Amino acid sequence: MSTPAMQRTVFVVSDSTGITAATFSNSVLSQFDQVEFDTVRIPYLDSIEKAEEAVARINRCAADQNAPPLVFSTLVDPAITETLRGANCIFFDLFGTFVQNIEEALGVKSSHSVGRSHMGGLSKQYNARIEAINFTLAHDDGQYVEGLKEADVILIGVSRCGKTPTSLYLAMQYAVKAANYPLIPEDFDRGALPATLLPYRKKLFGLSIQPSRLAEVRNERRPNSQYASIKQCRHEVAAAERLMRMENIPWLSTTTKSIEEISTKVMTEIGLERRQLY
Amino acid sequence: MSTPAMQRTVFVVSDSTGITAATFSNSVLSQFDQVEFDTVRIPYLDSIEKAEEAVARINRCAADQNAPPLVFSTLVDPAITETLRGANCIFFDLFGTFVQNIEEALGVKSSHSVGRSHMGGLSKQYNARIEAINFTLAHDDGQYVEGLKEADVILIGVSRCGKTPTSLYLAMQYAVKAANYPLIPEDFDRGALPATLLPYRKKLFGLSIQPSRLAEVRNERRPNSQYASIKQCRHEVAAAERLMRMENIPWLSTTTKSIEEISTKVMTEIGLERRQLY
Repeated sequence: MSTPAMQRTVFVVSDSTGITAATFSNSVLSQFDQVEFDTVRIPYLDSIEKAEEAVARINRCAADQNAPPLVFSTLVDPAITETLRGANCIFFDLFGTFVQNIEEALGVKSSHSVGRSHMGGLSKQYNARIEAINFTLAHDDGQYVEGLKEADVILIGVSRCGKTPTSLYLAMQYAVKAANYPLIPEDFDRGALPATLLPYRKKLFGLSIQPSRLAEVRNERRPNSQYASIKQCRHEVAAAERLMRMENIPWLSTTTKSIEEISTKVMTEIGLERRQLY
Repeated sequence: MSTPAMQRTVFVVSDSTGITAATFSNSVLSQFDQVEFDTVRIPYLDSIEKAEEAVARINRCAADQNAPPLVFSTLVDPAITETLRGANCIFFDLFGTFVQNIEEALGVKSSHSVGRSHMGGLSKQYNARIEAINFTLAHDDGQYVEGLKEADVILIGVSRCGKTPTSLYLAMQYAVKAANYPLIPEDFDRGALPATLLPYRKKLFGLSIQPSRLAEVRNERRPNSQYASIKQCRHEVAAAERLMRMENIPWLSTTTKSIEEISTKVMTEIGLERRQLY
């Protein structure tokens, strides 16, 4: 990693949460590692007054930095978009750029309605996510084993290898009922999966982690314990990976992956990505 | 809502998780409510072989449906992108469309490196998110009050109004240490905030919910209980809203909002969106 040679301010503007524009700009700007980007999000920009305020902020920034900021927009309203375009900035109209092409391709007109991109509070998808989060919280760390039969996936691995955040992400993002179950020294001594899990083999997905990283994480929780010692971590990780290999359970190491990456792999490998016709 | 008049398959292709492309396509396609879109995500598309497989899938779909599918791509590799473009599809090159403009605006070249958009497993941001999730889990529902002083925000509201999912989303997405604390009938009888919360007034944000919706949610958990009765729900919600108004605590109703929308409002209102220079 080299030190960034330049800095630039990025405004993310949206008539709704701005999550789409923020995700997109973050993603595309990661291609420019010479530049350090400082992002300002302006959500719920839904009136000309608010647009004028935003223009003033953008212009102030341009003047201070002597460089026009980048603006990523998912605004839908044409008049608000035009107002923003008037600012001293480099404007990227994410929807506008593609909506016309999509209209032509589909032969239909877009609805041009604002704030539609996220499901409303009462939708089926919303309820499914809340239900999955509640399920995941109730089935964290091997609690309430009777419920495992309802799980879509059961993550297994040694204590502190990343099961809980991954389970919660799967629930939150994909409405997947993700339980998790720890592999503990007794399982390694026995050299077998916990009996509780045997009926659910096909739902199991393993997470592992580098022993040195595990020792770090465990030390934060219980400093200088046997549990956090590098020796113990090495032993547990090796034993867990041996067990998962022996039992033919798909698994991956979380050490250098983001929660999003781990979750995507889990979805793909365990066939949760939904039955795909194509 | 009218019944969609047509259906169309959408492929989301990426050399990484595909989350950016999926978020974007979902968002822009929500502008076309006459069409029902069926999305197929192909993540980790990082070789010409995989690209050729994807082309075959897309072509099969086009032939079956007698219409070219839409393809949203955040592929970075030019050769892989070219392969995909060869499919019978309408191709949207999300990065390509903007990268050149950004290069010109900034006067620097992009790195054209794949799979960069999400932080690696060991990054500071990743650790901050995991720490925030652990904090939120430890401070769910008024547990461990000593830790509240470290919280970035404390969500309050009646039981089952949406505090837990919102707290988790804030932690997961923004690395915000979000605690939550229930408002219970005793608080309403006393007509005052729980004493525990008084030192943290500035961190409080209230969530409310329509009584009928609350009764529904509570009934799932404890069917036909006093707790879930519409009368009890009406009483608690009215009392909680009165208390929050009296105490001048910012709050909103979760009833018709997505977790993303609620979280964005919390971030903005409580000033967590970070100190913004502009």
